[in-house]
Amino acid sequence: MNAGRSLRTLRERKPLVHQITNYVVMNETANATLALGALPVMAHAREEVEEMVALAGALVLNIGTLSPHWVDAMLTAGRAANGRGIPVVLDPVGAGATSYRTDTAKKILDEVAVAVLRGNAGEVATLVGVDAEVRGVESIGDSGDSAELARAAARQLGVVASVTGAIDHVSDGERIIAIANGHPLLAAITGTGCMSSAITGCFLAVADSPLDGAVEALVAFGVAGEEAAREAKGPGSFHVALYDALAALDPETLDGRARIS
Amino acid sequence: MNAGRSLRTLRERKPLVHQITNYVVMNETANATLALGALPVMAHAREEVEEMVALAGALVLNIGTLSPHWVDAMLTAGRAANGRGIPVVLDPVGAGATSYRTDTAKKILDEVAVAVLRGNAGEVATLVGVDAEVRGVESIGDSGDSAELARAAARQLGVVASVTGAIDHVSDGERIIAIANGHPLLAAITGTGCMSSAITGCFLAVADSPLDGAVEALVAFGVAGEEAAREAKGPGSFHVALYDALAALDPETLDGRARIS
Amino acid sequence: MNAGRSLRTLRERKPLVHQITNYVVMNETANATLALGALPVMAHAREEVEEMVALAGALVLNIGTLSPHWVDAMLTAGRAANGRGIPVVLDPVGAGATSYRTDTAKKILDEVAVAVLRGNAGEVATLVGVDAEVRGVESIGDSGDSAELARAAARQLGVVASVTGAIDHVSDGERIIAIANGHPLLAAITGTGCMSSAITGCFLAVADSPLDGAVEALVAFGVAGEEAAREAKGPGSFHVALYDALAALDPETLDGRARIS
Repeated sequence: MNAGRSLRTLRERKPLVHQITNYVVMNETANATLALGALPVMAHAREEVEEMVALAGALVLNIGTLSPHWVDAMLTAGRAANGRGIPVVLDPVGAGATSYRTDTAKKILDEVAVAVLRGNAGEVATLVGVDAEVRGVESIGDSGDSAELARAAARQLGVVASVTGAIDHVSDGERIIAIANGHPLLAAITGTGCMSSAITGCFLAVADSPLDGAVEALVAFGVAGEEAAREAKGPGSFHVALYDALAALDPETLDGRARIS
Repeated sequence: MNAGRSLRTLRERKPLVHQITNYVVMNETANATLALGALPVMAHAREEVEEMVALAGALVLNIGTLSPHWVDAMLTAGRAANGRGIPVVLDPVGAGATSYRTDTAKKILDEVAVAVLRGNAGEVATLVGVDAEVRGVESIGDSGDSAELARAAARQLGVVASVTGAIDHVSDGERIIAIANGHPLLAAITGTGCMSSAITGCFLAVADSPLDGAVEALVAFGVAGEEAAREAKGPGSFHVALYDALAALDPETLDGRARIS
Repeated sequence: MNAGRSLRTLRERKPLVHQITNYVVMNETANATLALGALPVMAHAREEVEEMVALAGALVLNIGTLSPHWVDAMLTAGRAANGRGIPVVLDPVGAGATSYRTDTAKKILDEVAVAVLRGNAGEVATLVGVDAEVRGVESIGDSGDSAELARAAARQLGVVASVTGAIDHVSDGERIIAIANGHPLLAAITGTGCMSSAITGCFLAVADSPLDGAVEALVAFGVAGEEAAREAKGPGSFHVALYDALAALDPETLDGRARIS
């Protein structure tokens, strides 16, 4: 695990990260991807997703604003990514809030080999069948032991599970890694969970393993959040500073700031 | 009417505000909702809107970028909200600019019990059959007597009418309340009308009545606009400061700053 | 060619600029349009595009996030604009990345009289049949001689070609005008290409000719980029300052800052 080295590689190679994501955060995840140093592309038409994903270093599927055509496109793109060995990140936004979201997330997990599942505790708990309080799509606090939840999700769903919250937990079913970077202001703007999924995609395109990439992404995003908070006066100025901080991340010092255990 | 008390309640209860809104402002209204202290959710699939709205404290319908599937979803969600006593806000963006928008707004008013209609003078005038100059979706100045327009719309359409402009007017058909808070920079960025509708939804989830909620929302948003303008150098920095100001609104001093008559 | 005069006219007349554009940048191009001084409207339903475009001073078609309904709407709106003499801008986002995008851009060029084609070198090269490196939708450097490319595209496609990059080149097939305004930070945020297309639409609504409008737009946008970069700490703060700078553009001094040859 070496977030600095991966970030340096990412900025050299500038992998294309294909994102089929929700309307609310498209601009934000594209700008976060660019600020970090990768190239975002949003494309959702069934007419082009297979061709687009073939150009990509990673695929990010995010179910934040679903409709049937989009679900079809996600499945098509996901299968095409699998066929080419391109890692897939799934962000099950709002799983547990409605059965459509829960069912769609499960369907994607069934039909696509997902490398990293990145969600909040309520969403991930829903997908492993644990009762969870989910209200809409915003995280409303950690539910129970998210370290154990990450491990259970990884084992049961056959993914690297990345459960984010005040403290993030990433597990491949064996190891559990806790990441304590970040700042409460990240919960004050919409789309930071989606950004962390997009950044996970960026790191998966260059990391040694999905576990490494998932952890490195949360370290990088968390450190950027800490930097952004230093000059923020509220959620608006924090949001702006977050892009500046992503672009300013220094590969040389990044791992020294990781708060991993 | 007590904007401070409602804001305090809102921040304690954090109601979910379900928004079926346009592509242009989704991020902006979600962030305004979060900054104020409520929880936004965007969901437009007919497969899930009934289930989602059942979790919500208010539903906001905004016709800014229409297409037939979205109109269906708005009607479905609106009827489900009515069945559960969840207040509905309608923002008839661009009514008067095209017959599709005018007809859709009227159809929603016919088939859904709308608690608050929040629009600019041109849009509301269109819906009560008064000639109005509407060019696209941006407000281009008050048309005539918007106090009387608000009362006429409330009576004719059976809603609380919230007609925003340099001075806002809210009426339940009997009382007419004028709100003089706000700042000209609010007209310099897109989506501030949509934000005021989203914030109206937030306040409806906790207020004593639709009239109270509609007025309290415009006071809160107007005061935030005044604060944001203090440090703005133009529309970009104003936009950022607006979220900071919404988050910083102080329930203790809010009503003291209301310019209501 | 007189960017200052056109800007002054634009702020007086406030033309409506109808944009059928991608989900990623809708808010950004709307705000850029407003900051400059024109009125944006986004409308994509086949039910209303003909009526909406009839109100507009220019139509901007942008294929950044395609799907079949949207392509239909673009063609319908484009033909309606042609019938009324309303200038059409085409932004072929990602042409060359997938055949769906390339084919759609060509189809629009075939069926709609496009006044200005505004793209990066890779996209425009694709449309004139020159091999180009295109990765997704972000510009990745100038490919070869973009001055000659602009002239070839103008001649072959019967448009004014506006090929943007570190140095922009605009040609009507005879003249080639190079514009050296701008700043590298414009490439650090997503949607600046799309913004330049939207601003081209704004200037087309008031300029003496498509060639004049295309050049004036790039001068104005480039100068705004230069101003925004003065106080930016990174892509986030640059993005915010860009809107402030567009609003602050001074018609009196604009042409003095043009770096045209």
